[in-house]
Amino acid sequence: MSEEKKKVDPRRTIDPAALEVYDKNQGEKESAYDRYVKMQPQCNFGRQGICCRICLQGPCRITKKADKGICGAHPYTIVARNLIRAITGGTSAHADHSRHMIYTLTEMFEGNAPDYSIEDNEKLYGVAERLGMSREGKSDDDLLKEVWKQAVEDFTSLTGDPCKWLETTVVPERMEKFNKCNVVPRSVHTSIAETMGQTHMGVDSDPVNLIFQGLRTALADYTAMHIATDISDILFGTPKPVTTEANMGVMEPEMVNIAVHGHNPLLSEMIVRVAKEMQDEAKEAGAKGIKCMGICCTGNEVLMRQGVPVLTNFLSQELPIMTGALDAMVVDVQCIMPGVQAVSECYNTRIITTMSHSKIPGAYHVEFTEEHAMEKAREVVRLAIEAYKERDPGKADIPDVKHKVTAGFSFEAMGELLEAVSPGAPIKAITDAVDSGQLRGVALFAGCNNLRVMHDESHSHIIKELAKNNVLIVATGCAAGTAAKLGLMNEDAVEKYAGDGLKDFINKLNDANSDKLDGNKLPLVFHMGSCVDNTRSYDLTNALAEQWGVDVPKVPFVATAPEAMSEKAVSIGSWCVTLGIPTHVGVVPEVTGSALVNGVAMQIAQDVYGGYFIWEEDPEAAVGKILNALDERSWKLKVHKQVAEKFETELSKTW
Amino acid sequence: MSEEKKKVDPRRTIDPAALEVYDKNQGEKESAYDRYVKMQPQCNFGRQGICCRICLQGPCRITKKADKGICGAHPYTIVARNLIRAITGGTSAHADHSRHMIYTLTEMFEGNAPDYSIEDNEKLYGVAERLGMSREGKSDDDLLKEVWKQAVEDFTSLTGDPCKWLETTVVPERMEKFNKCNVVPRSVHTSIAETMGQTHMGVDSDPVNLIFQGLRTALADYTAMHIATDISDILFGTPKPVTTEANMGVMEPEMVNIAVHGHNPLLSEMIVRVAKEMQDEAKEAGAKGIKCMGICCTGNEVLMRQGVPVLTNFLSQELPIMTGALDAMVVDVQCIMPGVQAVSECYNTRIITTMSHSKIPGAYHVEFTEEHAMEKAREVVRLAIEAYKERDPGKADIPDVKHKVTAGFSFEAMGELLEAVSPGAPIKAITDAVDSGQLRGVALFAGCNNLRVMHDESHSHIIKELAKNNVLIVATGCAAGTAAKLGLMNEDAVEKYAGDGLKDFINKLNDANSDKLDGNKLPLVFHMGSCVDNTRSYDLTNALAEQWGVDVPKVPFVATAPEAMSEKAVSIGSWCVTLGIPTHVGVVPEVTGSALVNGVAMQIAQDVYGGYFIWEEDPEAAVGKILNALDERSWKLKVHKQVAEKFETELSKTW
Repeated sequence: MSEEKKKVDPRRTIDPAALEVYDKNQGEKESAYDRYVKMQPQCNFGRQGICCRICLQGPCRITKKADKGICGAHPYTIVARNLIRAITGGTSAHADHSRHMIYTLTEMFEGNAPDYSIEDNEKLYGVAERLGMSREGKSDDDLLKEVWKQAVEDFTSLTGDPCKWLETTVVPERMEKFNKCNVVPRSVHTSIAETMGQTHMGVDSDPVNLIFQGLRTALADYTAMHIATDISDILFGTPKPVTTEANMGVMEPEMVNIAVHGHNPLLSEMIVRVAKEMQDEAKEAGAKGIKCMGICCTGNEVLMRQGVPVLTNFLSQELPIMTGALDAMVVDVQCIMPGVQAVSECYNTRIITTMSHSKIPGAYHVEFTEEHAMEKAREVVRLAIEAYKERDPGKADIPDVKHKVTAGFSFEAMGELLEAVSPGAPIKAITDAVDSGQLRGVALFAGCNNLRVMHDESHSHIIKELAKNNVLIVATGCAAGTAAKLGLMNEDAVEKYAGDGLKDFINKLNDANSDKLDGNKLPLVFHMGSCVDNTRSYDLTNALAEQWGVDVPKVPFVATAPEAMSEKAVSIGSWCVTLGIPTHVGVVPEVTGSALVNGVAMQIAQDVYGGYFIWEEDPEAAVGKILNALDERSWKLKVHKQVAEKFETELSKTW
Repeated sequence: MSEEKKKVDPRRTIDPAALEVYDKNQGEKESAYDRYVKMQPQCNFGRQGICCRICLQGPCRITKKADKGICGAHPYTIVARNLIRAITGGTSAHADHSRHMIYTLTEMFEGNAPDYSIEDNEKLYGVAERLGMSREGKSDDDLLKEVWKQAVEDFTSLTGDPCKWLETTVVPERMEKFNKCNVVPRSVHTSIAETMGQTHMGVDSDPVNLIFQGLRTALADYTAMHIATDISDILFGTPKPVTTEANMGVMEPEMVNIAVHGHNPLLSEMIVRVAKEMQDEAKEAGAKGIKCMGICCTGNEVLMRQGVPVLTNFLSQELPIMTGALDAMVVDVQCIMPGVQAVSECYNTRIITTMSHSKIPGAYHVEFTEEHAMEKAREVVRLAIEAYKERDPGKADIPDVKHKVTAGFSFEAMGELLEAVSPGAPIKAITDAVDSGQLRGVALFAGCNNLRVMHDESHSHIIKELAKNNVLIVATGCAAGTAAKLGLMNEDAVEKYAGDGLKDFINKLNDANSDKLDGNKLPLVFHMGSCVDNTRSYDLTNALAEQWGVDVPKVPFVATAPEAMSEKAVSIGSWCVTLGIPTHVGVVPEVTGSALVNGVAMQIAQDVYGGYFIWEEDPEAAVGKILNALDERSWKLKVHKQVAEKFETELSKTW
């Protein structure tokens, strides 16, 4: 799409519900689609990463005339510094989420979090075992305390051992590589502080050194994320298959409609629980009941564990308000557009912020505390009921668009499904299918939405094409949101889009698991959770590597973030690459201003870590590149298997 | 100076030595002065803080047409986020320095740092006592271990008590204020990670909430800095008065000239020590000996403790190379222009990087380790001797500019001087002088150089004017560098520039301390150390508050950073304000794009914390504003003292 086109057409989405709401409200209230158009043209120095604002002598912009910063920094230094600060921003956001989980445990141990308890003992045992802890003679609380202690250590230690959560979730060859390249994080917080210090004016100007520190930070990000997911599962349960619906049609005109939005399950889980108890209060207010729905990754959290319907994903977050049917949008942290507040002021929606470090001027604020979690949740729901009372039912105009969704595929849930067809070695179900050519590999769809590309289009197009080409598809975050909203997360989509191999693979799983699915069937896209739970999909990659007996850079697994937007996406992409995964990104990050840094991302990374970035904004071209990346790996696996068989040796991890 | 003028004249310094070298080399090799000219005009969106690059949908620049970011972020959110990320950059740089000190202790305890030991037991006792630790039955090593443990705690803890280094170095009223405003840092690293997370896309959009988190981070910065200074003093000795010389004329044409540059005394102290032992090696190479000199704050460290001459300050760091007489520039971390490498390639200077996280492509790299500190220092000095052998003596052209310098005024050294005139209550010497009108107050000159203003001019002008107006002047960092280079740090300057009151005050100190000064006299500007040691001057402010029996916002003490440049300056300025000090900054930071944020900095901060920012780029106007700030406070002190005397009550801290 040309720049010119971008300037004139704000209808930058393929979601029919979003288009309907947008068209009805156009001009009345500004949304991100409109602001994007107003923001054109955008600064190309920033886009290329060659604008430095790290000291007060700047901004320094690299041009032909000024080919270095005032301090003498080359473009490669400027680009590398900006890039790894973005990784640090992402890591810090994930660390915030993860730290909040750790705090909750701290409060539990001190008796200050009465509404939280161990929900999933099996998960706790699994995590403890992986960390090398013995259960012998310990209560579950004692064991959790030991896990918590290690989490605190992984978060804070200044020196000493590598982060345990990293070390115990990757094949040993990866740790060897990280040790050799000196990118093992000391701890999450130390890595963050190191990177911010190393990028200060007049510290490191060596781009490779900077990038390696960035990768260390990305591995710290992985550590923080894995900790958060493990604790979430222990406290709220590990997701299992659930079936519900998605897109704006899930709102009910005569119910109190509450959307939970953000990235943190700590409060949203409680809201969903108390909403069930407070149906009568809603009925007293004249409603038929309370309907909870999710946006972004708080939505994904409660979808995965409670089967809460998906309202929409990141980019269209302002639009449900414009239907006039949303009574409250309860937000916690990350990816919450401040724009929701201005929109809400024209409708009857109450924006309710809940975290002390994440406020919006003008919004309602109900400060969440672990000590009074249920009470705070009730307060929030009550605000929504109050709003419902003031709502003008005549003004509610909900688009009639929704799709069936089957979600809840945690790594453990995937394991159970596969176990049914491959008892004792569940992952072998996938490796066999790849070895036999039934599947071409596995692809993770992750990441956000970004107005630089058409909303939902890249996700949707690439998903359909990979499915046609027999790629097993897992998804997280707002990519999963697209799949859910657009009807790609159910059995009909399998019929419609899957190639024969993939269809057979899924149907075999369906047949073997019919008892587990409540009469439903498996979807085309397997939802593995919120974006902050992306390590679930790495657990799968790692299991594939273990099953094949190879290091990760040999596994036909690709990650793709077709509409990457946030710093978190930058850090996740960076750990994917470091952990050995080819990673497609559909919105080129701010690195093109340095051929050197760009080259490291796309080529040198592969030479060193086996993973590498593929920048490709065109979805059609991206499909080809992703398939190539998968084919290259499965071809090599095949050849080496043949060689190994011929010479009767084991498949070597070190070829 | 108009933008037009800036564009045409790269001779942006008043340092005669710098001008001489610049003029001789003009056009031959590019320096920061030239790059500044080439960089004009600079981007005004960045300058105002209204360019947001926090997500991959950006850059978003605020204009009349696009008055919010794509996500809906208001200018106040964008400006506040950018500002507090800058504070975090500065805090992280100081944390890096401080963490390195802590690591060194860790290595010492494990027997891996044989070249380091406790140099100043008295300082150790003082620090331990302040932290509430008993010496009873403990060896010095045990005591140091206890101090180290607390430092680790202040750096890492996730929850719990306020940072001890903050709590024990400020008057109780300050801690009450911080607790009330909820800005007490949990720990240095946690604050850094929190701020980076809170400023992620879609988290906090409340500018006041953001700024308060920024201030919490600034207090974490103060904590990290105070820890570093205390450990440095324990390991290398607390500075005492020393006399030497400053400016480029200190280089010796027939000696091996080595400049240490950066901010870390860990290696530079060793270099200065081994250089003394290696004079014979230098003589064998044909030199008369080895001359060590300092640039920036590594320079200030070795000046303060070892009397090593000052070569130059930040902005002119490339120029000593252009004399052809500098054999090696040994750099560690922070404020090292990458530009030095390109210049060195045209001369005979070897740039030697020494820290694993601070490299320059093309430079020599000798990796410092605590375990082999002396050995590494020898390696570095040997590289300089090798360079000397290759030097063409005919090409060395050293400007004949240098000035006598008396430095070394740590807080403890100041106390000793004052003790001689006011036994038992040293600080009373200053409070009495202010009460009687002899002194108008105290000013700290801190901060960097910045090409946005004429190099050294603002420092120099404001120093002279405040001296004339009987303000007692202390200085740190590159501000102290200006004073040293331009002859303001010796007794002649007292004669030349001090008003009668200041002159009498200094002379009284001279008379009482003649035995301590080796025949020298006290200077006009008291050098309190490197910029990373700025907490020394806060200790003085705090002592003044204690002596007067008031909270800091009543003390006639002003901080000024007339040529602020780095993120460290932003964080130091922010803690100065939070700690209650009016803080003049001569280069307006990137906040003017939001009237709200700017108003908080200049006014609301005063209402809440008692400190506030004064932006004033014109040095003459700045003098007036600084004097006003001092006079307002000393007038109030006087009035309240009269009232208190009249009603025979104590001077209340809470009026």
